[in-house]
Amino acid sequence: MACLSGPNLQLLGIREPSIYGTETLDAIHARLVRRACELGVTVEVHQTNHEGALCDLLSELRGRASGVLLNAGAYTHTSIALHDALRAIALPCVEVHLSNPDAREPFRRRSRIAPACLARVAGFGGESYLLALEGLVRHLRALGLDPSA
Amino acid sequence: MACLSGPNLQLLGIREPSIYGTETLDAIHARLVRRACELGVTVEVHQTNHEGALCDLLSELRGRASGVLLNAGAYTHTSIALHDALRAIALPCVEVHLSNPDAREPFRRRSRIAPACLARVAGFGGESYLLALEGLVRHLRALGLDPSA
Amino acid sequence: MACLSGPNLQLLGIREPSIYGTETLDAIHARLVRRACELGVTVEVHQTNHEGALCDLLSELRGRASGVLLNAGAYTHTSIALHDALRAIALPCVEVHLSNPDAREPFRRRSRIAPACLARVAGFGGESYLLALEGLVRHLRALGLDPSA
Amino acid sequence: MACLSGPNLQLLGIREPSIYGTETLDAIHARLVRRACELGVTVEVHQTNHEGALCDLLSELRGRASGVLLNAGAYTHTSIALHDALRAIALPCVEVHLSNPDAREPFRRRSRIAPACLARVAGFGGESYLLALEGLVRHLRALGLDPSA
Amino acid sequence: MACLSGPNLQLLGIREPSIYGTETLDAIHARLVRRACELGVTVEVHQTNHEGALCDLLSELRGRASGVLLNAGAYTHTSIALHDALRAIALPCVEVHLSNPDAREPFRRRSRIAPACLARVAGFGGESYLLALEGLVRHLRALGLDPSA
Amino acid sequence: MACLSGPNLQLLGIREPSIYGTETLDAIHARLVRRACELGVTVEVHQTNHEGALCDLLSELRGRASGVLLNAGAYTHTSIALHDALRAIALPCVEVHLSNPDAREPFRRRSRIAPACLARVAGFGGESYLLALEGLVRHLRALGLDPSA
Amino acid sequence: MACLSGPNLQLLGIREPSIYGTETLDAIHARLVRRACELGVTVEVHQTNHEGALCDLLSELRGRASGVLLNAGAYTHTSIALHDALRAIALPCVEVHLSNPDAREPFRRRSRIAPACLARVAGFGGESYLLALEGLVRHLRALGLDPSA
Amino acid sequence: MACLSGPNLQLLGIREPSIYGTETLDAIHARLVRRACELGVTVEVHQTNHEGALCDLLSELRGRASGVLLNAGAYTHTSIALHDALRAIALPCVEVHLSNPDAREPFRRRSRIAPACLARVAGFGGESYLLALEGLVRHLRALGLDPSA
Amino acid sequence: MACLSGPNLQLLGIREPSIYGTETLDAIHARLVRRACELGVTVEVHQTNHEGALCDLLSELRGRASGVLLNAGAYTHTSIALHDALRAIALPCVEVHLSNPDAREPFRRRSRIAPACLARVAGFGGESYLLALEGLVRHLRALGLDPSA
Amino acid sequence: MACLSGPNLQLLGIREPSIYGTETLDAIHARLVRRACELGVTVEVHQTNHEGALCDLLSELRGRASGVLLNAGAYTHTSIALHDALRAIALPCVEVHLSNPDAREPFRRRSRIAPACLARVAGFGGESYLLALEGLVRHLRALGLDPSA
Amino acid sequence: MACLSGPNLQLLGIREPSIYGTETLDAIHARLVRRACELGVTVEVHQTNHEGALCDLLSELRGRASGVLLNAGAYTHTSIALHDALRAIALPCVEVHLSNPDAREPFRRRSRIAPACLARVAGFGGESYLLALEGLVRHLRALGLDPSA
Amino acid sequence: MACLSGPNLQLLGIREPSIYGTETLDAIHARLVRRACELGVTVEVHQTNHEGALCDLLSELRGRASGVLLNAGAYTHTSIALHDALRAIALPCVEVHLSNPDAREPFRRRSRIAPACLARVAGFGGESYLLALEGLVRHLRALGLDPSA
Repeated sequence: MACLSGPNLQLLGIREPSIYGTETLDAIHARLVRRACELGVTVEVHQTNHEGALCDLLSELRGRASGVLLNAGAYTHTSIALHDALRAIALPCVEVHLSNPDAREPFRRRSRIAPACLARVAGFGGESYLLALEGLVRHLRALGLDPSA
Repeated sequence: MACLSGPNLQLLGIREPSIYGTETLDAIHARLVRRACELGVTVEVHQTNHEGALCDLLSELRGRASGVLLNAGAYTHTSIALHDALRAIALPCVEVHLSNPDAREPFRRRSRIAPACLARVAGFGGESYLLALEGLVRHLRALGLDPSA
Repeated sequence: MACLSGPNLQLLGIREPSIYGTETLDAIHARLVRRACELGVTVEVHQTNHEGALCDLLSELRGRASGVLLNAGAYTHTSIALHDALRAIALPCVEVHLSNPDAREPFRRRSRIAPACLARVAGFGGESYLLALEGLVRHLRALGLDPSA
Repeated sequence: MACLSGPNLQLLGIREPSIYGTETLDAIHARLVRRACELGVTVEVHQTNHEGALCDLLSELRGRASGVLLNAGAYTHTSIALHDALRAIALPCVEVHLSNPDAREPFRRRSRIAPACLARVAGFGGESYLLALEGLVRHLRALGLDPSA
Repeated sequence: MACLSGPNLQLLGIREPSIYGTETLDAIHARLVRRACELGVTVEVHQTNHEGALCDLLSELRGRASGVLLNAGAYTHTSIALHDALRAIALPCVEVHLSNPDAREPFRRRSRIAPACLARVAGFGGESYLLALEGLVRHLRALGLDPSA
Repeated sequence: MACLSGPNLQLLGIREPSIYGTETLDAIHARLVRRACELGVTVEVHQTNHEGALCDLLSELRGRASGVLLNAGAYTHTSIALHDALRAIALPCVEVHLSNPDAREPFRRRSRIAPACLARVAGFGGESYLLALEGLVRHLRALGLDPSA
Repeated sequence: MACLSGPNLQLLGIREPSIYGTETLDAIHARLVRRACELGVTVEVHQTNHEGALCDLLSELRGRASGVLLNAGAYTHTSIALHDALRAIALPCVEVHLSNPDAREPFRRRSRIAPACLARVAGFGGESYLLALEGLVRHLRALGLDPSA
Repeated sequence: MACLSGPNLQLLGIREPSIYGTETLDAIHARLVRRACELGVTVEVHQTNHEGALCDLLSELRGRASGVLLNAGAYTHTSIALHDALRAIALPCVEVHLSNPDAREPFRRRSRIAPACLARVAGFGGESYLLALEGLVRHLRALGLDPSA
Repeated sequence: MACLSGPNLQLLGIREPSIYGTETLDAIHARLVRRACELGVTVEVHQTNHEGALCDLLSELRGRASGVLLNAGAYTHTSIALHDALRAIALPCVEVHLSNPDAREPFRRRSRIAPACLARVAGFGGESYLLALEGLVRHLRALGLDPSA
Repeated sequence: MACLSGPNLQLLGIREPSIYGTETLDAIHARLVRRACELGVTVEVHQTNHEGALCDLLSELRGRASGVLLNAGAYTHTSIALHDALRAIALPCVEVHLSNPDAREPFRRRSRIAPACLARVAGFGGESYLLALEGLVRHLRALGLDPSA
Repeated sequence: MACLSGPNLQLLGIREPSIYGTETLDAIHARLVRRACELGVTVEVHQTNHEGALCDLLSELRGRASGVLLNAGAYTHTSIALHDALRAIALPCVEVHLSNPDAREPFRRRSRIAPACLARVAGFGGESYLLALEGLVRHLRALGLDPSA
Repeated sequence: MACLSGPNLQLLGIREPSIYGTETLDAIHARLVRRACELGVTVEVHQTNHEGALCDLLSELRGRASGVLLNAGAYTHTSIALHDALRAIALPCVEVHLSNPDAREPFRRRSRIAPACLARVAGFGGESYLLALEGLVRHLRALGLDPSA
């Protein structure tokens, strides 16, 4: 399983803490990896500010990962390329957000990637990542699939 | 804690199973109550097809519940009354959906209630309810609040 | 077969007769029941001003009625809940209107329920109900289905 | 009474039978003429792919026909000329459709001609023509007008 | 005369006091009834969260009330059914709001019911009800009508 | 207190009496001044067809008037300058209209000045001015402010 | 010089006389030809309901006419083909209308052909044709061109 | 009769001659007055850059002029105040333009004043004024009205 | 195989050569027929300004042609009738344009017929026809179909 | 060189200081004149609340000023008349704003005058005027023009 | 000559074969290079998921390539940067697509890069690349330019 | 202080000189550094075509630079990621443009980054950079901040 975070999420804990909280992305990643371990799955974590690099990463997951957690940050609202990448690799993907984008500025109301995503977890801060992981693992197991990769 | 489900959700398990799955709402409720019990909280469950009844229910939760799980069904996309009810009672609310509305028809892309919600869990079928509960309990505990009511 | 009428249709015959005519809903219902009888089918008739009650009624028709005549009145233009209820019960539905909504105010040009309806009859006053019934009976018989319930 | 059919309806029975059925326009016309005969009225039938020819035909009906059944096909959604022709001849017109346009692509949701039409029957396949005829005859007789021409 | 209040107004005095003030609806009703008494008219007061119940109430006023004060709350912005009910009963209606909706969120800028209303009073808190009553009484008396019922 | 009326209101009593009534602006002003006197406040009255002159007048009220009644006429729908002037002088303002703009042409549905106004009274003809005055005086007194200037 | 009239204009004098007047197109043509004669120019006149025929006619004018008067009727608002035909023949064209389209329904506010027209005369009934002719003749003569053909 | 010209028309002959020509407004006015004289009518001419002054002028014409020629310049596209002034004085008005606004920038495609105008002449340069005058005089005489004032 | 060209294309070589080039349609047709011959297929060529005639032509191709090259000219952007005709005959169609419509006026950005077309070649002048032919022949052969008819 | 300021800017220093700062317009003008002097140019300064007066002023600058600094205030967003005036006088103009309009309400995102402006300086408070002056002087000198007038 | 392919095209042959076919990008490149060779030109091929890298590549082509084949993938619909890069290097560019974007989701109907492109070939699968190459070579040769680089 | 330039700006001096001038970015950078030196501040300069790289650069400025000059080029109009990066680092930023985007194509009218920017300087060619620097330095000094880093 892979967890990808997009633009500006490297600033987490620093960036607008009233919206995004004070936990760093490293801390969330650490908690996520621990929780994955408890659930008997592995999760690799990545962050990049580059839309193209997110496409590269998604492309490389094809055939070796069982699913994706994707916090595409601002690219959520503009990137058809990520939408196409998700369609192309055909892995179950959970859209993750720290805040609840639909409760914010109008331009955050449209998710370009949602039509290619299985599910969304938003608004629980760093906990959104863990809930998304749990949801995806349960989803795969309910289908008789192996989420361990 | 309360869990409210809106229009047509009484048909769950029957209604368009390719979209909504085959589990009934009663079965989800049973699982939810069990999970709440494990988490040390109580959850009351309601379903109604009436927008006004959802407002009534929300209003009655004021001052006695610690939070709300709300699957407003079709009213998600049209009801300013529910939005206002949520603002009025000022309880943390998680928007719950069985399917991922943003991946469906354009008219399901707008949530009228989101601006009054803390978070959203969508797309995990009946499991969305349980993840929402877990998320809300963790959120309240992280703030030092008591989610038991 | 069931015939459901929505908000303000109890005022028929009184309400804006230049648009809606002078026949009362009771009179239309009487004519409809007689015509159903001639066609060898039964039709139950309902009117309510409550969107939720229309959902309740539709839900209860599932598995026992052969089709629905639905004059959703103003909810035609706003109710996704009715749309979803129709999809959920999967019965053939004819959208009925006394006037021709597309010839009136712009906000009556959009039917939220049409995508879940087989057909529409509009503009013939009370006669719209009878033509809709005749059309639905012929439709079911053409498919080899039994319209009597 | 006249029945006009617009573009591509000559292909009926061949064209996309899952949407439009397998009955040819000639067969529908034959049934329509028979039904008119039973109702004691005459109906002339026309089909053309030309918007201008539909205007010509409508114009020639002025003063000699008692009403019009018009399936304008794709011109329904684009032709202000037909709208104006209907206003100009001031005959009662029923808009007819085989399928239910409001349940199809978004560009079929707008009827340019509806504001100049008395009524609409849509979605009953070829039967839509007969129901429209019946409705129009009843309408004229209810007003004390003679539908025979 | 009747005064109808819609969804969430039972929470007045509690709900977002920075917007809606601290006076309860009961207190406003009491003041309104007193003022009506001084003006020599009677006013019956109702509150409901149900759009259909508001339609029921309006329908029942036909022929026995001289006018309506209507604070439709959130339904102001979405309900064509209320618009149609007002047109159907053809009583003079004053749209009442505690806050000034046009000064708030964009979705509060459109009033669905305004085209069926004589007048609007908005922004004076509970006092809006009294001013609306005074305006409606003066309006009826100026036309030589009796506002006492 | 000041009462400002905008473009074409000098034609009141003459201009489209079916919409605006037959009372002249002078007559309304006279009634307004009398009512102000009864309420123990003074009100100066102005009318101009010039948007800039309305801005000039508003600017001059700063620091010496306790509030404003503003019937901006057609500028209501187009003038950001008036909106900014109201924000700049920071006096409580009541938007006044003789007719009910939201019940008229679509271009009258948007008020540019509303976001800078405390309240609105519309649709009572000349009486709108008096009700607005009464509302503003009560509002100021409720806040413990002196409306006399 | 040529004068082309489009769909439904053959019904002039009959069609909605409150909008279009009682003069027939033949009568207008007669007056136009006489006026052309007085101005020392010739004008050929055509009417057709067919968009394609209007394109044919325009195409044939290329190289032999000095200008065009075009009342495209309803095609004014929808025909890019006529726009392109005008651009292709590069003759000065005056858009003519009997009524004033911008004062009518919203769908008559857009002229597809205007960007390819020199000028517009609208709202003077049949007189619009004569004024357009006079304007075009004066325009050509002011440029030193010969309007006689 | 009165001829009013709006903002920037005092710069005619200087301003963008490729669009507006080289004739000054004074020269056009002189030609217009001469032509009026030949037609047996008088015409007073005004130019102002002030929207409010145009309203003042229109208001003063009420009851003493037989009609108006109005080139509102840029206010054509933005001024509801002028629209209302024209409605208020209820004189026949011809909208005049030197260029053909519908052939220019998109923001010149909407005329705010057209719904209150009898007719439009556009695109003939200064000659538009004379044709408008001729059209208005013929219109008034055709109605048996006296255009001399 | 058939090649259909729509409105104003008969003017090719004359019409706006900076956009459309100087080659006539006859010359393009000649080259196209030669190239078809080289490819071992036959191609019949048609041009008409009539939307209805294009529908007629398409309808007649059903069952006897292997594919269609269609330059619908201005009808590309407005004709749902052509879209429906293409769907009805279910032949592979290549949309052809001399210029690149997406690089021109905004109203040329929407192709009504594209959803019923296999492919598009645009912007190569007359060469677009030949490339479209080559592409369609290769496409059919790749599918094992015979493009010769 | 001239510096024109539009509506409500006379209130600078008083009006919403959190947005516009505490410096008065007179103080800014004084600083601007001093800076102009240092740069070897003269600048005349004007403020008016009247759109028409701004047009008058711009018109009078034609032929005697070398450029314009224009803070059109709220008219920036609504005035086509100012746009046309700038085009008419054809002087280089810099649009000046104290705040950064694109960072504020949506209705401040559209500048009607920008298409007729060389440049924009916004967001530096009173300093915007000085930077605009410096930029315009450098621009003129770079073109070899004399900015002194 | 250069051929650039954008995001997710490295997945060709794998990604949604029902839409994009089963040929890999390498295979297409190989065929393209062979075809270029036959035509006596060279073509270099690139693929990247990075919008910025596409800009870099385009920039480097300036002055050394004779033209560009660009399949910008999802960036076609969102990238103004690519549009600007094409304008900046001023090389003839052919927009290439495997599928026919105008026949797919609405968000694929807008090409941001088309206004900077000479031509488009879409819908022929991998063959689109070869046809685009052939078209571009013929175009350059027709202009007397050397396409070999 | 840092100065970042986005896509295609490396082509400055070459790219469309009629819009962007003939000065190269290196030359502008040199002038900017010199001017910074005169003002007693340092400025580091960067250019990249990659949106993600601009985010990386902005992120790295946090805590060590005093402000940012950002010419985001085409990303100005599409990048929410840059908007979020600016919000995240919370440094004062001046939006810089060589041309005046609001005077160009409609798609350049929307700045995605403006809501996160202090100010904008646009339209002065390379001089825009220097004026932006001067404005930012003055702004920081006026607030008592040290712009030297």
